[in-house]
Amino acid sequence: MAPARPLLWRSLRVFQIYGANTDVGKTVFATILSRAAKGIRHGERSAFLKPVSTGPLDDADDRHVEKHAPGVVRKTLFQYDTPVSPHVAARGKEIPLDSELLSAIYDFSSQRAAEGAGWLFIETAGGVHSPGPSGVTQADLYAALRCPVVLVADSKLGGISLTISAFESLKIRGYDVEAVLAFRDDKHDNAEFLRAYFAKHHGPLVASLPKPPPLLPNANGDADAELMSRYYQETSGNAETLRVLDELDRSHRARIERLESMPGEAHRRIWYPFTQHQLLTPGDIVAIDGARGDFFQTLAPPLPRTGDNGGTQVQPVLRPSFDGSASWWTQGLGHGNPSLALAAAYAAGRYGHVMFAGAVHEPALALARTLLDNSGNPRLTRVFYSDDGSTGVEVAVKMALRAARRRYGWSASAEVGVIGLRGGYHGDTIGAMDCAEPSAFNETVEWYSGRGIWLDYPRVKCIRGWWAIEMPTDAGRELGEDRMFGTLDQVFDLERRELERDHEVYESYIEKRLSRHVGEGRKFGALLMEPVVIGAGGMELVDPLFQRSLVKVVRRSAKLFDPLHKPEAADTADNTSWTGLPVIFDEVFTGLYRLGRFSAASFLGAGAEPDISVHAKLLTGGLVPLSATLASESVFAAFGGSEKADALLHGHSYTAHPVGCHVAVESLRQMRDMEARGEWDWAKRGGDQTSSLGGLSLSPSPGEERVWSIWPEDLPDWISHQTRLVAGTWALGSVLAIHMDAPDGLGYKSNAALNLQRTLRDGGDGGAWNVHSRVLGNVLYLMGSQKTTQEDIAEIANLVRRAFSRRSANRKSPSPKAS
Amino acid sequence: MAPARPLLWRSLRVFQIYGANTDVGKTVFATILSRAAKGIRHGERSAFLKPVSTGPLDDADDRHVEKHAPGVVRKTLFQYDTPVSPHVAARGKEIPLDSELLSAIYDFSSQRAAEGAGWLFIETAGGVHSPGPSGVTQADLYAALRCPVVLVADSKLGGISLTISAFESLKIRGYDVEAVLAFRDDKHDNAEFLRAYFAKHHGPLVASLPKPPPLLPNANGDADAELMSRYYQETSGNAETLRVLDELDRSHRARIERLESMPGEAHRRIWYPFTQHQLLTPGDIVAIDGARGDFFQTLAPPLPRTGDNGGTQVQPVLRPSFDGSASWWTQGLGHGNPSLALAAAYAAGRYGHVMFAGAVHEPALALARTLLDNSGNPRLTRVFYSDDGSTGVEVAVKMALRAARRRYGWSASAEVGVIGLRGGYHGDTIGAMDCAEPSAFNETVEWYSGRGIWLDYPRVKCIRGWWAIEMPTDAGRELGEDRMFGTLDQVFDLERRELERDHEVYESYIEKRLSRHVGEGRKFGALLMEPVVIGAGGMELVDPLFQRSLVKVVRRSAKLFDPLHKPEAADTADNTSWTGLPVIFDEVFTGLYRLGRFSAASFLGAGAEPDISVHAKLLTGGLVPLSATLASESVFAAFGGSEKADALLHGHSYTAHPVGCHVAVESLRQMRDMEARGEWDWAKRGGDQTSSLGGLSLSPSPGEERVWSIWPEDLPDWISHQTRLVAGTWALGSVLAIHMDAPDGLGYKSNAALNLQRTLRDGGDGGAWNVHSRVLGNVLYLMGSQKTTQEDIAEIANLVRRAFSRRSANRKSPSPKAS
Repeated sequence: MAPARPLLWRSLRVFQIYGANTDVGKTVFATILSRAAKGIRHGERSAFLKPVSTGPLDDADDRHVEKHAPGVVRKTLFQYDTPVSPHVAARGKEIPLDSELLSAIYDFSSQRAAEGAGWLFIETAGGVHSPGPSGVTQADLYAALRCPVVLVADSKLGGISLTISAFESLKIRGYDVEAVLAFRDDKHDNAEFLRAYFAKHHGPLVASLPKPPPLLPNANGDADAELMSRYYQETSGNAETLRVLDELDRSHRARIERLESMPGEAHRRIWYPFTQHQLLTPGDIVAIDGARGDFFQTLAPPLPRTGDNGGTQVQPVLRPSFDGSASWWTQGLGHGNPSLALAAAYAAGRYGHVMFAGAVHEPALALARTLLDNSGNPRLTRVFYSDDGSTGVEVAVKMALRAARRRYGWSASAEVGVIGLRGGYHGDTIGAMDCAEPSAFNETVEWYSGRGIWLDYPRVKCIRGWWAIEMPTDAGRELGEDRMFGTLDQVFDLERRELERDHEVYESYIEKRLSRHVGEGRKFGALLMEPVVIGAGGMELVDPLFQRSLVKVVRRSAKLFDPLHKPEAADTADNTSWTGLPVIFDEVFTGLYRLGRFSAASFLGAGAEPDISVHAKLLTGGLVPLSATLASESVFAAFGGSEKADALLHGHSYTAHPVGCHVAVESLRQMRDMEARGEWDWAKRGGDQTSSLGGLSLSPSPGEERVWSIWPEDLPDWISHQTRLVAGTWALGSVLAIHMDAPDGLGYKSNAALNLQRTLRDGGDGGAWNVHSRVLGNVLYLMGSQKTTQEDIAEIANLVRRAFSRRSANRKSPSPKAS
Repeated sequence: MAPARPLLWRSLRVFQIYGANTDVGKTVFATILSRAAKGIRHGERSAFLKPVSTGPLDDADDRHVEKHAPGVVRKTLFQYDTPVSPHVAARGKEIPLDSELLSAIYDFSSQRAAEGAGWLFIETAGGVHSPGPSGVTQADLYAALRCPVVLVADSKLGGISLTISAFESLKIRGYDVEAVLAFRDDKHDNAEFLRAYFAKHHGPLVASLPKPPPLLPNANGDADAELMSRYYQETSGNAETLRVLDELDRSHRARIERLESMPGEAHRRIWYPFTQHQLLTPGDIVAIDGARGDFFQTLAPPLPRTGDNGGTQVQPVLRPSFDGSASWWTQGLGHGNPSLALAAAYAAGRYGHVMFAGAVHEPALALARTLLDNSGNPRLTRVFYSDDGSTGVEVAVKMALRAARRRYGWSASAEVGVIGLRGGYHGDTIGAMDCAEPSAFNETVEWYSGRGIWLDYPRVKCIRGWWAIEMPTDAGRELGEDRMFGTLDQVFDLERRELERDHEVYESYIEKRLSRHVGEGRKFGALLMEPVVIGAGGMELVDPLFQRSLVKVVRRSAKLFDPLHKPEAADTADNTSWTGLPVIFDEVFTGLYRLGRFSAASFLGAGAEPDISVHAKLLTGGLVPLSATLASESVFAAFGGSEKADALLHGHSYTAHPVGCHVAVESLRQMRDMEARGEWDWAKRGGDQTSSLGGLSLSPSPGEERVWSIWPEDLPDWISHQTRLVAGTWALGSVLAIHMDAPDGLGYKSNAALNLQRTLRDGGDGGAWNVHSRVLGNVLYLMGSQKTTQEDIAEIANLVRRAFSRRSANRKSPSPKAS
């Protein structure tokens, strides 16, 4: 794996020179800056790099630098002879992979940094969006380098426009433009306009320098060279040039100071969620400079200082860290995704926010359409927007409880609870917290009171190579022995399991439990659960057949929940009406391709679709909060009436904010396109190999999709054999969960997985990159985005294996270094 | 008032032609398109408009069109002779205001629409960001026209970059680019690259046409003209040209169809917040096409159809509607603010979201710094982020209750409530709802239970020209008679009123009430209120002296809340520690310049600052949801401990999302800059006039800022004299609240203000623009943004006066037409 490594060293100031257009003088400014930089501090070096050059070698920009900035180290990495755009010039030639190009830039820069204090100017080719050799435009290609920019303005007629647009294209990709440089031109004083423009918009410094002398008509080359030489001598000593270098130096130092001071300042000013601050030191806080794709760019911990200064200076300030929790389960399409950034900006520019009562805008409607049309659930017809998963669940509960209360004629003061699964967790607002049973997450919270009952359930794990269904202990022998399957597909083959009557024991168990609670006088208004995976409650894979059975039992009869109820025709007006209780699926974590499918409800099979479903997190691909609660018409009807107070009394100011809705439309489109194009086929194919047990795999029924994961198929199997450390593991969609065998007890407060987490944090390639992961008690999980590549997953899987091997080795022969 | 009017008619297809650069062939393409458009449908006309032209008249683009597209109507609105950028060419000449320029474009377009079905191509000057005559760049200048774009690509070397960047600059401003047109060029086949690029990004159609013939060397003009003539004949009949026109026609019709179908589809698919759908028809749903500044661009209701088709076709499809609720109190810096859009895109491009536990990023820290440093509250040291005002209040309540419970040693199961004000409302999640007393907003909601007590309070209103403080009826005579003041400044001059001992009666009243409740065994964990204005609970202006007194009484003594409490030194470690109870100010509505000041707490004077404050809505200037709960170190300390479970157990996945934080930093910077630059001085000066009562105004103390409003100072006075209709009114900051004298009873369910709302909706200038307003029961309020201009406010104030006059007249002589 070679994630792009950001270019930041303490002693080396690196700037990327972009042009507002081709032929605006990038090389002239690069020559001036690199020449001037060499001289300003004693002993400091200056270097020039042209990653990709087109045109004859003799005209190459580094030759110009060699001639006019003697003593400046210079290099061209890839040279193509034809003077056209690199993507055209490279046709038929050797084309470096983008990652190779970035790697070569890093290596050259790193060597310069190793040589001591100095400067490096990297000149791009053409304009900001001129394509690189692979065809990816430079602004995208180089963004992961996190290199600050010197933008060379176009000083000609029309150049104001080009310069502002180039600036905006860079900003959209998170570039920090530190200076705009222009030639002075009396006719089109673009610099004057740009200075005022950027000052008004709190933009970069704008500086202007004299134009190079025109070539003399009919003069010989020597006279031209003499003029140019004088020009460079003058401009590189010019006060304006020195002012620019000063500013660049200042911004470089300020950036590093900010990065280094951030953990301390955060420790003083920020109140972190779910964090015991008394256990938090500034050293525990990771300073994040930026993020791209699946990687954060984080402040690297300092290497131990030695007497040899030269050695320590080489250490880069930043390193890539794989975002192993997909930033708390939000990132689907990679950090810094330019399409999502542009989508956000478009909606912001077109609308800002517009109030969403008695009004409608296109993004809200388009998103509603997309969600309803792709849910695969014939019940859902309505979309209610709120701000996040927690509010989305509160909305869902308000919907369901009202529907149930109205049908069963319960009074407004009746205590009505939810039916859920043990450990299920739905958010941190009080109403969402109340849907979870008491636990370390909520039991100390004022105003929390668990409102409902929570059934224990059978869990699925890979153990010693078998896919086991572990029956809950509090079910006693009611559910029989644990079950073993050869593949996860077999566990999810519900049709076959129902043919084998596996569900009957579940249904009778569930019905008995529910009857008992109702018999005790309890009232319930909803079945609320996360389909397939209990997320925050411990990353448990639930036997899908159990959940299917639960839905079926709940739907079967109104009498179960109100023995006195007299069914009315309206209760079951059509086959999309809710029966028994409204069923809510909290798909905030599990939905929208997290587990490989648009909706996780589909794992439970036809007939088990929810009446209400809640979506958030991946909905906006990892950009801004937004939630959608989908409901059926029969739930919706429960709020009809002539009184406004009968309406669903919920609404946020930013309800259906266009930025979120439009970004969500774009995110879902991208993910659906990826699915349609088969971009996850490599992962799906992983499931074609038979498991290590061999021979037990069943082909899925025709037309039915297998369950699949981006994690190598043999990884859960391998991990599950680390039996001294691991209780069980599973992988599905983008998630890998490792349940450690925790001698200090299971549960949220456990520290069992922390050692594995530390090994991942120390990283691979001698710390050149690492993995930022999260633990939930004794569970360490790793989660990719929907864009994570097969190569990256393979490398991380290897790191996981190495971590286990090291830990196993340590266990065998404990040494003072093991920790 | 002349808000920019969007260019959309059913029969006239209007497109704006932008260029990726100057000299890319905009005029050539405009000529081809307008010439071809003329012919394709029988009887359809075609027109060309150049709003601003520079260069000699003979070379003007409309002459070129005249010559090569005979029969096309053409016009140049503003002509400058010098062939430079319009902002330079216009120096020393007559410069049209931006609004005049937009108005002239509208008028020309409207005339074309009146002439029947056809096409209009509007050619911009230079590149997308080339400045118009006023210096505002065109992409910003013309955005409010909501005109779809034909972007002419640059076909030269480097043109790929310029075209993509120009496209992005347009998108950031909400433009819909419908087609990209390029010349074919064998050497730089930019069109080919752009076609693939935009296809991949689901962008516009890309079409290419042959280049115009080069001028013949040494040939006479006639030969050139002949060549050009042939060129235009060929290209305007070309299949590619017709394909482009087809696509433009399709997109025009699709847009109108979408707009017209949106209300119906929304009625079927959307579940609206706080809306009784049974009372909602598609006709009640406003289709919003876009928004700019303070105006929505809304689908105008169809005029009654007459037999005369020509007459009805003139009606524009869209009209500007003043966003009179600031989109549910979110919009501070105007809709479609390009700086905010770019800020959002920058953070999206730099980070996406990054998980916010044990990590920190610059925008989160910069926003924390800005909020703490500008709060003017020495108590606040910590920032906790959540997603919206409701979650922010839940966080605040979790903070306060824990702090109180810990200090007073109450058990975890003790019922602890809040002290609030009657009608106070803090959000729709259950925990926030529980902070409000039972009302129509919540009493039917399952799981709601009001947890606390709510004091009635003295209200401030302008009545018959006097600023009255109305004492609450349930206080009996305890608080004495209503008070009258000559100006609102006098009401807010708390220092003087305390000198006059006005507060003593308040304090003893409050203390008595609280003692009684505590005496009954009730426990309280927080004082929670909206400073100065009760927003959603009825838009009531609270006597600030009463709120100040309430804070003082609550802080005075721990004994008041726990008679057995033995004070410890740690309770009052320093003078920023909370005493009595933690005081929470919900500034979600009132803060961040809504009432003219960064924090509304400052109206209550020194010593009455909260221990916890909640901010949202204007925080992000009207773009995306984000909330910040600020707290003091002494509140923070209550969550210290060795157990993770003692931490504040709250956190959303998108906590401190960089997009929201960075947009908030930019919003607050813009508003603070506006204040520093004196951009609200026109409104502040309004307060210098003495009220219509004359002679009663007191100058504010030196260094103390007066209270002020953007609404004309004499407006509340005038309205307050409409005594048959109005119970009272007030204006403060951007808010004007009109309490109607509602014969059908006060409160949320009242329809009293609906008639006034209807008059505003019908609008001014014969319906050319209107006002979209919201009512809360018997209260109609109007709210500007922080960017609303004096001119717009004056016009709206006039419309309000006219509405009252008409209603008064109607009352006097009811006629069948009055409704």
